[in-house]
Amino acid sequence: MPAAVVLLSGGLDSYTAAAVARRDGFELYALSVRYGQRHVTELEAARRVAAALGVVRHLEIDVELSRMGGSALTADIAVPKDQPIDPAVIPVTYVPARNTVFLSLALGWAEVVGATDLVIGVNALDYSGYPDCRPEFIRAFETLAGLATKAGAEGRTFKVHTPLIALSKAEIIRLGLSLGLDYGLTHSCYDPPADGRPCGHCDSCRLRAEGFAAAGALDPLTAHS
Amino acid sequence: MPAAVVLLSGGLDSYTAAAVARRDGFELYALSVRYGQRHVTELEAARRVAAALGVVRHLEIDVELSRMGGSALTADIAVPKDQPIDPAVIPVTYVPARNTVFLSLALGWAEVVGATDLVIGVNALDYSGYPDCRPEFIRAFETLAGLATKAGAEGRTFKVHTPLIALSKAEIIRLGLSLGLDYGLTHSCYDPPADGRPCGHCDSCRLRAEGFAAAGALDPLTAHS
Repeated sequence: MPAAVVLLSGGLDSYTAAAVARRDGFELYALSVRYGQRHVTELEAARRVAAALGVVRHLEIDVELSRMGGSALTADIAVPKDQPIDPAVIPVTYVPARNTVFLSLALGWAEVVGATDLVIGVNALDYSGYPDCRPEFIRAFETLAGLATKAGAEGRTFKVHTPLIALSKAEIIRLGLSLGLDYGLTHSCYDPPADGRPCGHCDSCRLRAEGFAAAGALDPLTAHS
Repeated sequence: MPAAVVLLSGGLDSYTAAAVARRDGFELYALSVRYGQRHVTELEAARRVAAALGVVRHLEIDVELSRMGGSALTADIAVPKDQPIDPAVIPVTYVPARNTVFLSLALGWAEVVGATDLVIGVNALDYSGYPDCRPEFIRAFETLAGLATKAGAEGRTFKVHTPLIALSKAEIIRLGLSLGLDYGLTHSCYDPPADGRPCGHCDSCRLRAEGFAAAGALDPLTAHS
């Protein structure tokens, strides 16, 4: 089985993207990043998800993006709550160059393990707001990857798989449920209160709730609250 | 003065590249990365160099590339000593995706400080061996940067300055000396012995020695040994 390096945040999207890659015949090398995120508890979810997926290896790596700040997820900037979500505006939860950094790390690890396939759970909802989730960004990264690496210099071609890129949150959830995924393992909230439960008010919680509602499914994280 | 984020390793090349950027009118934001490198002492040199350059800020950031391994600089792989240097072969000191990771971090910090100029000291000697030092890699990164960022989405254009890219080591040294640089502040050795002095036998030490010899200059690091 070919190996793929999958970026695993502990959220619903990356879990689903990884499960699609596994279904498609890849052995998974899961990479999670501790970057100083406010919702570092997502890394516990990433461990649960990695175990459920049966990954070959799960690497958690520290990258101190919070030393740079510049985002509500990494600095002392309030996470928007119950604000209208305008897809034409890049929200303050944007972390400068985050996916570029993450894909670069995935690329490095892929070279080490001999893989040329990377998997990332970006999707249509994301790329309406975050520039580094757009299809044109992904294509540019593939071009870069070929030029950046020893593997590329030797003629190998890197592919960044984005199985969710054209899907809405409801479509992602339906896909994941059809694959038997347990979304109770995941974490989505940007700003979890001390009890670790979802805040229910940040963009991530609200998009998740709307997604489950539109999919006609119950979110196991909130179904009993 | 416009701001530029400069990658500063503590070596001779990045010091010179930064000095050129300063001469060209940029305020410098210096970024150094502790990535598990064998020659972590280079970060002490980076601090000396940053102070000498009068940078606005010097950020040292941890990124655990050594968790991935795959290089003589980050894993238990011997650093070649006194081996012929074949520019057609990528050496084992290649660190998978290192410059992609470093430039991504520089890009993130640039966004936070409002800069669109990045500086990296790659040069012709490097890119004959390391794929992520080639001009085509740099151009691909500039394209990616525009697509990856909020700044790019807002119409700003990123430029990666590579003032040394066409220069030999001797030309770099002559350029730096003409700018009044003190190369005694720098560190180049890949595999420094416990006393911290250059080993004199790794590729980096040998290219440095050949460069000083060809420039007709004395290396302050070894002149008295």
